[in-house]
Amino acid sequence: MQGTVLYGPRDIRFEDRESPRIEKPTDAIIRVAVTCVCGSDLWPYRGIQKIAQPTPMGHEYCGIVEEVGSGVRTIKPGQFVIGSFCISDNTCPNCRNGYQSGCQNLEFMSRAQAPYLRVAWADGTLVPTPEFPPDDLLPSLLAISDVLGTGWFAADAANVKPGSTVAVVGDGAVGLLGVLSARQMGAERIIAMSRHEKRQQLAREFGATDIVTERGDEGVERIKEMTNGIGADSVLECVGSEESMMQAIMSTRPGGSIGYVGVPHGMKLDVFPVFFHLVRLHGGPAPVRRYLPDLIRLVWDRKINPGKVFDLELPLDQVAEGYRAMDERRAIKTLLRP
Amino acid sequence: MQGTVLYGPRDIRFEDRESPRIEKPTDAIIRVAVTCVCGSDLWPYRGIQKIAQPTPMGHEYCGIVEEVGSGVRTIKPGQFVIGSFCISDNTCPNCRNGYQSGCQNLEFMSRAQAPYLRVAWADGTLVPTPEFPPDDLLPSLLAISDVLGTGWFAADAANVKPGSTVAVVGDGAVGLLGVLSARQMGAERIIAMSRHEKRQQLAREFGATDIVTERGDEGVERIKEMTNGIGADSVLECVGSEESMMQAIMSTRPGGSIGYVGVPHGMKLDVFPVFFHLVRLHGGPAPVRRYLPDLIRLVWDRKINPGKVFDLELPLDQVAEGYRAMDERRAIKTLLRP
Repeated sequence: MQGTVLYGPRDIRFEDRESPRIEKPTDAIIRVAVTCVCGSDLWPYRGIQKIAQPTPMGHEYCGIVEEVGSGVRTIKPGQFVIGSFCISDNTCPNCRNGYQSGCQNLEFMSRAQAPYLRVAWADGTLVPTPEFPPDDLLPSLLAISDVLGTGWFAADAANVKPGSTVAVVGDGAVGLLGVLSARQMGAERIIAMSRHEKRQQLAREFGATDIVTERGDEGVERIKEMTNGIGADSVLECVGSEESMMQAIMSTRPGGSIGYVGVPHGMKLDVFPVFFHLVRLHGGPAPVRRYLPDLIRLVWDRKINPGKVFDLELPLDQVAEGYRAMDERRAIKTLLRP
Repeated sequence: MQGTVLYGPRDIRFEDRESPRIEKPTDAIIRVAVTCVCGSDLWPYRGIQKIAQPTPMGHEYCGIVEEVGSGVRTIKPGQFVIGSFCISDNTCPNCRNGYQSGCQNLEFMSRAQAPYLRVAWADGTLVPTPEFPPDDLLPSLLAISDVLGTGWFAADAANVKPGSTVAVVGDGAVGLLGVLSARQMGAERIIAMSRHEKRQQLAREFGATDIVTERGDEGVERIKEMTNGIGADSVLECVGSEESMMQAIMSTRPGGSIGYVGVPHGMKLDVFPVFFHLVRLHGGPAPVRRYLPDLIRLVWDRKINPGKVFDLELPLDQVAEGYRAMDERRAIKTLLRP
């Protein structure tokens, strides 16, 4: 089998790798139908997050179950399944509390940019679709695995409710699907912060009512002008930098909530302004498993079309170009077909 | 009139000061029945928080209305009133959202360690008791003004619910009243972190079910052992140091909540572990005004006795000794009678 391996900054190779096999009785092997490149893959790709050795890449996936271990009870060969980027047993106390991304047996998926993939804790991690899906649903089903699930968590963590005023910091795929999620949760006003025309357009399609192009202090001032001088009820922080986090905090009203899902690389937060702004902060790796059944249902019933974030589709062996296009912001998100 | 003034580190003086008078139509003047020293007063007292000039002190108070400005509508001379340490108009959007400590006309009370006190936005800030209170209720009514209101907010911000498991970091008066608040909110298990026998005893009286004397990593391990290996549902951070905040974060289960009310002096929080611990953070200056009517009712009906945190009572002119006793941890909290 050939798969995707990162060797160093901007050095992605598609090369021979050992085919995955059942290692534990709770494993499954799936044949990947579609996979993709994540914004978080760009951190090690750009060398900002160091890697110690050549590293197999990819954590978003859906596909057909090929084989299951002897301990797998509910997942069956032949099913079409979607899993989270977080491997979880779905039975530990944290999973039962709905925080599968804090599972006591947590593993982070990698190696998914490949034609075959081993999924540990298959019964806990994977959810089958109602039937075998039509081809045009694949991008949206794939999106659930991380990017939609993460945008959904951002909105949920930011306490978006019917009637809420919401601001979204970050116009990457997660931010855009944060807009879609806020719309689904009944937000009345959704302010997308973006200065990129194509992304603004997609934000509007997903339900944004307003676009703010200003950043930093000016962006905060614009949000306040639009919200009775106090800030938004809910702010989704979908970047992970100190600057974007401060922008999110300053844009939130006292008692309002920030859902933050961008991995905070080296972020040292001055708590003093957070304290006096009286905001709520919640975030982390999204517990996508909690949302999988509902999100599969929304996609299956064609109520939402999160797959629109994929504006570049490539055969898997051209994965290097997929990374390049996202790195250079030529593409929002690259879908890869084995 | 004589009042309390801080001149520099550990230099508290009780000296002649101008008597307060009505400055704006929305002001009231109250005759202070009792006042006290706050844990947060110790920051400037110890010189950790710098002061630019001699500074009148005190922000906790209750007493009798002497005089009101021409624009005051609901508060009347002769009423016995309690106010928050935050002055608020109680009509702006933030106040209407229940965040009076984020009022668009916010001022922080000072000058309350004195026999007379000007209270701005009297209608918004002050709440009268049902009748003139008996003397033995004064300590508990005074406690509402900040220390109980703040402990209550810590528990509320930490989402304490019936059946919750709660840990309280900090055994000062706020932490102890956080225990009382969590008990009132129906927490099933309340773990007080303290190594001070007298405070442990008061924590138990207020409703603590367990005492943990370990700190730092050992304290976190003890909390985890007691909570199915995952951490507490709710943690109240009532100190304000980086160390206590990290202890609170690490003691909270994924999806659990931290209510933090200790003013975070120079705290730079590494967001990476906060992110991967999936905790909720909420805190700030407590919106005591929101809670005043309910807390007055609980004290009036003698359902709670928060005044027990005052273990030292002095005439106001001995205020310097009141600070010293708290600084040296000889007293939990000092009550002062003009």
